[in-house]
Amino acid sequence: MRLPLLLVALILCGTIFYAQSEDEKQIKALYDAALTNGKAYDWLNHLSNQIGGRLSGSVQAQQAVDYTKGQLDSLGLDRVWLQPVMVPKWVRGTPEFAYIETKPGLTTNVPICALGGSVATPDGGLKANIIEVQGIEELEKLGTENIEGKIVFYNRPMDPTKISTFAAYSGCVDQRYSGAAEAAKFGASGVIVRSMNLRLDDYPHTGSMGYGDTPVENRIPAAAISTEGAELLSTTLKLNPNIKFYFKQNCKQFPDVESYNVIGEIKGSTHPEEIMVVGGHLDSWDLGDGSHDDGAGCVQSMEVLRLFKKTGYRPKRTLRVVLFMNEENGLRGGNKYAEVAQNKNEQHVFALESDSGGFTPRGFSFDCSEENLKQIQSWKPLFEPYLIHMFVEGYSGADIGPLKGQGLVLAGLRPDSQRYFDHHHAENDTFEHVNKRELELGAATMASLVYLIDKYGTIPQKQIKG
Amino acid sequence: MRLPLLLVALILCGTIFYAQSEDEKQIKALYDAALTNGKAYDWLNHLSNQIGGRLSGSVQAQQAVDYTKGQLDSLGLDRVWLQPVMVPKWVRGTPEFAYIETKPGLTTNVPICALGGSVATPDGGLKANIIEVQGIEELEKLGTENIEGKIVFYNRPMDPTKISTFAAYSGCVDQRYSGAAEAAKFGASGVIVRSMNLRLDDYPHTGSMGYGDTPVENRIPAAAISTEGAELLSTTLKLNPNIKFYFKQNCKQFPDVESYNVIGEIKGSTHPEEIMVVGGHLDSWDLGDGSHDDGAGCVQSMEVLRLFKKTGYRPKRTLRVVLFMNEENGLRGGNKYAEVAQNKNEQHVFALESDSGGFTPRGFSFDCSEENLKQIQSWKPLFEPYLIHMFVEGYSGADIGPLKGQGLVLAGLRPDSQRYFDHHHAENDTFEHVNKRELELGAATMASLVYLIDKYGTIPQKQIKG
Repeated sequence: MRLPLLLVALILCGTIFYAQSEDEKQIKALYDAALTNGKAYDWLNHLSNQIGGRLSGSVQAQQAVDYTKGQLDSLGLDRVWLQPVMVPKWVRGTPEFAYIETKPGLTTNVPICALGGSVATPDGGLKANIIEVQGIEELEKLGTENIEGKIVFYNRPMDPTKISTFAAYSGCVDQRYSGAAEAAKFGASGVIVRSMNLRLDDYPHTGSMGYGDTPVENRIPAAAISTEGAELLSTTLKLNPNIKFYFKQNCKQFPDVESYNVIGEIKGSTHPEEIMVVGGHLDSWDLGDGSHDDGAGCVQSMEVLRLFKKTGYRPKRTLRVVLFMNEENGLRGGNKYAEVAQNKNEQHVFALESDSGGFTPRGFSFDCSEENLKQIQSWKPLFEPYLIHMFVEGYSGADIGPLKGQGLVLAGLRPDSQRYFDHHHAENDTFEHVNKRELELGAATMASLVYLIDKYGTIPQKQIKG
Repeated sequence: MRLPLLLVALILCGTIFYAQSEDEKQIKALYDAALTNGKAYDWLNHLSNQIGGRLSGSVQAQQAVDYTKGQLDSLGLDRVWLQPVMVPKWVRGTPEFAYIETKPGLTTNVPICALGGSVATPDGGLKANIIEVQGIEELEKLGTENIEGKIVFYNRPMDPTKISTFAAYSGCVDQRYSGAAEAAKFGASGVIVRSMNLRLDDYPHTGSMGYGDTPVENRIPAAAISTEGAELLSTTLKLNPNIKFYFKQNCKQFPDVESYNVIGEIKGSTHPEEIMVVGGHLDSWDLGDGSHDDGAGCVQSMEVLRLFKKTGYRPKRTLRVVLFMNEENGLRGGNKYAEVAQNKNEQHVFALESDSGGFTPRGFSFDCSEENLKQIQSWKPLFEPYLIHMFVEGYSGADIGPLKGQGLVLAGLRPDSQRYFDHHHAENDTFEHVNKRELELGAATMASLVYLIDKYGTIPQKQIKG
């Protein structure tokens, strides 16, 4: 039987309209549950205030594994398990100390902290002349004759005109990550890096650095200085380029230790073989309590599964929460998860990471095919009542990145970024700077996207390429 | 000469493209100037930390008038002046005090504050039985027999499922504003209102209330209780409905005093008779320092004019900043400004208010004709690089509301609202809760809209109606 065209159109419209309403209803149920009865904030309170900073290999990291596994166990998921992974263990040791010496005996203390992975200074500290540069590319011009024996002070600030503070971060972070390895090539004795912070304040911000192929005997200590400290140092240097800088840090790298990714899942009702991942990273830096980076992303991801249970929605595909270990200084958890997935021939169709802070969600960025992006963007109107507007192509997340080869849709939650680098990797990344509603809105926004992905599926990338 | 259609199309496209690029450039210049060289944050620092809460009629309100006039004077505007206006003077007096008495001698203190405009309690305070209601409409059902002599406790919370916290506020604030007048009709002896706050904490939130036509001798004292206090009181009442509540407050209404709206303007280069207003209100409640409500809106409005000067853009229309006095408990400044404008036959084409906190801007709401809204919405793509997405019909602002009759486009800046009611009218509305970049982004967003309105003009409403 051939239906008249108008009738077909009416049926199609009807179907679309019906589906739309059902989606609206389910999304509203997810937001309502998160905002009236959420667990994310309580979980974060525990992670932040009862456990604290969770650097890989630390007692606190293990406590966080135990705690989150216990909480996932209590949600009535189909399966909860720990995935072993060897992680680096770097320890800060006693607090760092630094001063500017304008002339012998005339010193001003400045706040610093060792960069993660740095070697210690000699036992008595390191004192040397210091030379300011605006970036790695200046080293070549200055040459060994101007650098040898000195401390190199990287002082290129984050660009305040970038609306995304992550773009401003990207424009500077090479100084922190590679600054020491590059300066060592020119005989520098140490490295001081302006903190990755748009605000002027007294908090030094740590973060990972690497020595690349620098031989062990040539590795030089590297520390971050607070932005106010950097301004002071720069001004002092302008007045007198012959000042000395002293710093002492006692950090140390230990052999790798065993740790875990924490994983829980709800088995898919009709396509259990198709796996959707939501996750954040359970480790954090040691200075604060890791509330925004990335306690927030962990509890939001756990909340996604809880919201599904709470609203009585059983996913058709398997939904997995993964709390990755060691994002900050190794990415071992993310790599291990992808490796195991590949070895087991698991079929991942979607992975969503929240690792940009627990601020008001603005949308998502997607690392996927154009066809998938188009499908996802067609869902935008469903999110607008919740003031979620960003559905752009872009970066997803560090921990889910290693899954990329497996032909899936990768996504990152994009919260408002303005305050993120006020706290990132610093002593003031603490619970009181997370707003309960903002955190909950993020969890509901993630759950809503997962719901739509589950319901409508993704377009397999291989099929697209083929 | 008739041009071939294709040529016309090309010329039009060219014009549009050119105009677009110029707009993009000017808007980027405004954002860059605000983010690299803004003054708003410094001004707010002074208003908040050197002056503090600026309740109408207070010394601090006068200091704020003097300070902002001085700052506007220094900007090289074409004219800066004070517009006199008589304002109410209500004074809180010594700190309020309250407790729950479960049995004689067994008391628990709870944090309260007098509502603005309330009468004092008797000198020795007021102690009475207390009855909880979820809203004014319950009074009728309870009737005088259940209310007479008692304190009425309004405890309807803000609805956490509303994404706009202002919508949640609207759904509750009648309890605060009219609760006392309504309860007095049933013989209540006083009123305690749950603070307008979505968060559970210990800050009572003040705000205006009115007695309507309640005769002076029947006016009963009204106070806000913190949300944690409200929860405690409600639970205690469930356990024992016969508990007593005691509170003492010493507030007093004085005769009106003279104050000022602070006004500055840049004369329009080609349409000086067409006036565009940007503004916020200079007065604030007395508990905090009024940083978000509405120091932020004042300094953002001042910044709009400074950004125009800084970027060398001379508006075609007259651009006026108005810092309105007495929004919080009288709206006398807004009314006076509109009255003078009408008396002088001034032609206002546009007014934009920022009075929703100094948080990340999300867009605007507009109270204007459909044609004007359509024109404004056509500019949306220019704002998207700055993550400004909301261009909706809606409320503009209290102070500019009285201009409405004059057939202009009214607009309100819409920042992210999630944290606003954590601070609104409470002791913790303080400078450290304002983020510099968020504040600056708001100012640049306002300036960009004013720039477009100035450049393209508005469609006169009378013309539309006719």
